[in-house]
Amino acid sequence: MEHGMTEQLNVQQMAEKLLAADNILILCHKNPDGDTVGCGSALYYALLALEKHAAVLCADPIPGRYAFTKPRLFKGEFEPQIVVAVDVASVQLFGEGNGVPQYTRHVDLCIDHHAGNSGYAEFTLLDGSAAAAAELLYEVICAMHVEITPHIADCLYTGLSTDTGCFKFSSTKASTHITAAKLMEAGAHVEELNTLLFDTKSRERMEAERIARNHLEYHLDGRCALIYLTRNEIEQSRVDPADLEELTSLPISIEGVKVGLTLRQQPGGSYRISVRTAKGVDACAIARRLGGGGHTRAAGCELLGNLDNAKSAILSEVEAVLDAPQEEA
Amino acid sequence: MEHGMTEQLNVQQMAEKLLAADNILILCHKNPDGDTVGCGSALYYALLALEKHAAVLCADPIPGRYAFTKPRLFKGEFEPQIVVAVDVASVQLFGEGNGVPQYTRHVDLCIDHHAGNSGYAEFTLLDGSAAAAAELLYEVICAMHVEITPHIADCLYTGLSTDTGCFKFSSTKASTHITAAKLMEAGAHVEELNTLLFDTKSRERMEAERIARNHLEYHLDGRCALIYLTRNEIEQSRVDPADLEELTSLPISIEGVKVGLTLRQQPGGSYRISVRTAKGVDACAIARRLGGGGHTRAAGCELLGNLDNAKSAILSEVEAVLDAPQEEA
Repeated sequence: MEHGMTEQLNVQQMAEKLLAADNILILCHKNPDGDTVGCGSALYYALLALEKHAAVLCADPIPGRYAFTKPRLFKGEFEPQIVVAVDVASVQLFGEGNGVPQYTRHVDLCIDHHAGNSGYAEFTLLDGSAAAAAELLYEVICAMHVEITPHIADCLYTGLSTDTGCFKFSSTKASTHITAAKLMEAGAHVEELNTLLFDTKSRERMEAERIARNHLEYHLDGRCALIYLTRNEIEQSRVDPADLEELTSLPISIEGVKVGLTLRQQPGGSYRISVRTAKGVDACAIARRLGGGGHTRAAGCELLGNLDNAKSAILSEVEAVLDAPQEEA
Repeated sequence: MEHGMTEQLNVQQMAEKLLAADNILILCHKNPDGDTVGCGSALYYALLALEKHAAVLCADPIPGRYAFTKPRLFKGEFEPQIVVAVDVASVQLFGEGNGVPQYTRHVDLCIDHHAGNSGYAEFTLLDGSAAAAAELLYEVICAMHVEITPHIADCLYTGLSTDTGCFKFSSTKASTHITAAKLMEAGAHVEELNTLLFDTKSRERMEAERIARNHLEYHLDGRCALIYLTRNEIEQSRVDPADLEELTSLPISIEGVKVGLTLRQQPGGSYRISVRTAKGVDACAIARRLGGGGHTRAAGCELLGNLDNAKSAILSEVEAVLDAPQEEA
């Protein structure tokens, strides 16, 4: 897959490509989230309404909390004529499970909102300013003249709300709210969805969070807050490790904290460190000093050695970045 | 104040009443939240733009997190010609502090979204389906032909987002998202506001939450979850008791829990119990059995006696309601 070999389509052109096709395989990204699953299911039901053969394929199982979107999972029951990826920024993100690689050698269409999309598909509908791929797919389904049923609205609302932390993250634009309003008018069950997606935590997750909060430490005059979970603690709480992702936003949410750190011990013993920063502090610069990377406000790295070593290594890099002369924005 | 003696106005009529007045006193409710403060400040700046004299009065201090809305606080510098209440459902909610009672004997105008508004004002703009009073005030300010400046947009967004838990609560309607979109287009600083309003917790609040989570108990086969804080714990954590309100949503957020209980010991030693329920379970019915009251999904009561007595009293009422034959909705 060469970078940037893709041809950019607008919403209308993407709708026409889909309308012209049959036997359509929809690909989600690995470690599927609400946006890729919501889009996969919404597109499946839109294509079904057009009496096309379609199914969804993902390298990993669909998480239980998104099961209600009820995607038809691909079991090889047709020969894909068109492969379309939803919310997948690069080929690596397709993953390896469920026989996915045999369908990613040539991806025909891609609908995505990641500004860094590598351009792996033949045709791409990309809007890096969209808060979720679901925002784009909503437009595409409307352009295909398929009715947004309450179920399709639920699927798209799942993508929109999970990718924006229920309209809280900075990615939320005026257009995001407009799309949410349209999905509600189309019958999305927003009350039930918000409870399911944002206000339901497993007992195991509660237990792991309790332990992590008991480990809360302040460093560097309160400018840095740190929580951690050892492997033993993660295993004893029996939490699904995917459920711990949200914990990484906890330390940075404390008043006065500029850098929030979450250390989770991995099965091999190393510590995975999630770095979250307040506006004006570069998380990626911190992670990069220890061989990691990421975005400006959210980055990560992995350190071998015991907890104390991992802590002191990351804290000295945090201190270096916090005490560096402030660059002009 | 007689109940229901008010005359209902529409948005246009309310705008005309305000346009015709000068020396306008804006009243907020006691224990001010983001909606009453946001509306008070937004209306003050709208009236200022019309070169009217106006100021805001509240029985309690404006919480620090809403200080940025910068309401001009009333210091008796003019003789109010018109008194307008924002987000105040009944006269009792004005409170007693700051000389408020001398201005609540006759309230001219009221802009509110509480379906149970007692009709205490001479003229009322009421929409019980609006998610926040800010949603209505936005329409009124537009009808007054005042430009929604970025600051007015910030004030109204504060009301809209805090009253809906950032668009998560069931009160959120399609129109709520439409108003949010318009406020963003008017220049509301949504990223900074969301961080301030939803992702900033004090160290004291973190400590109190840590203690409460260590007290998490499951009862009635996991259908009921309970947390508590004794007076000593509240005082030792030095948390502002107002900051504990949000904790009441914690137990009900656990998978499988139908009734979530939060017990907070009051300065006099009694336990204030907050009852939150899943859909289909009547929180008010539980609280009423112990002399309390509230809404269907959120209610409360207060019990004398020690922690063990309070727990067993409330748990037996929870059990009675959970085990009662299910009424048809």
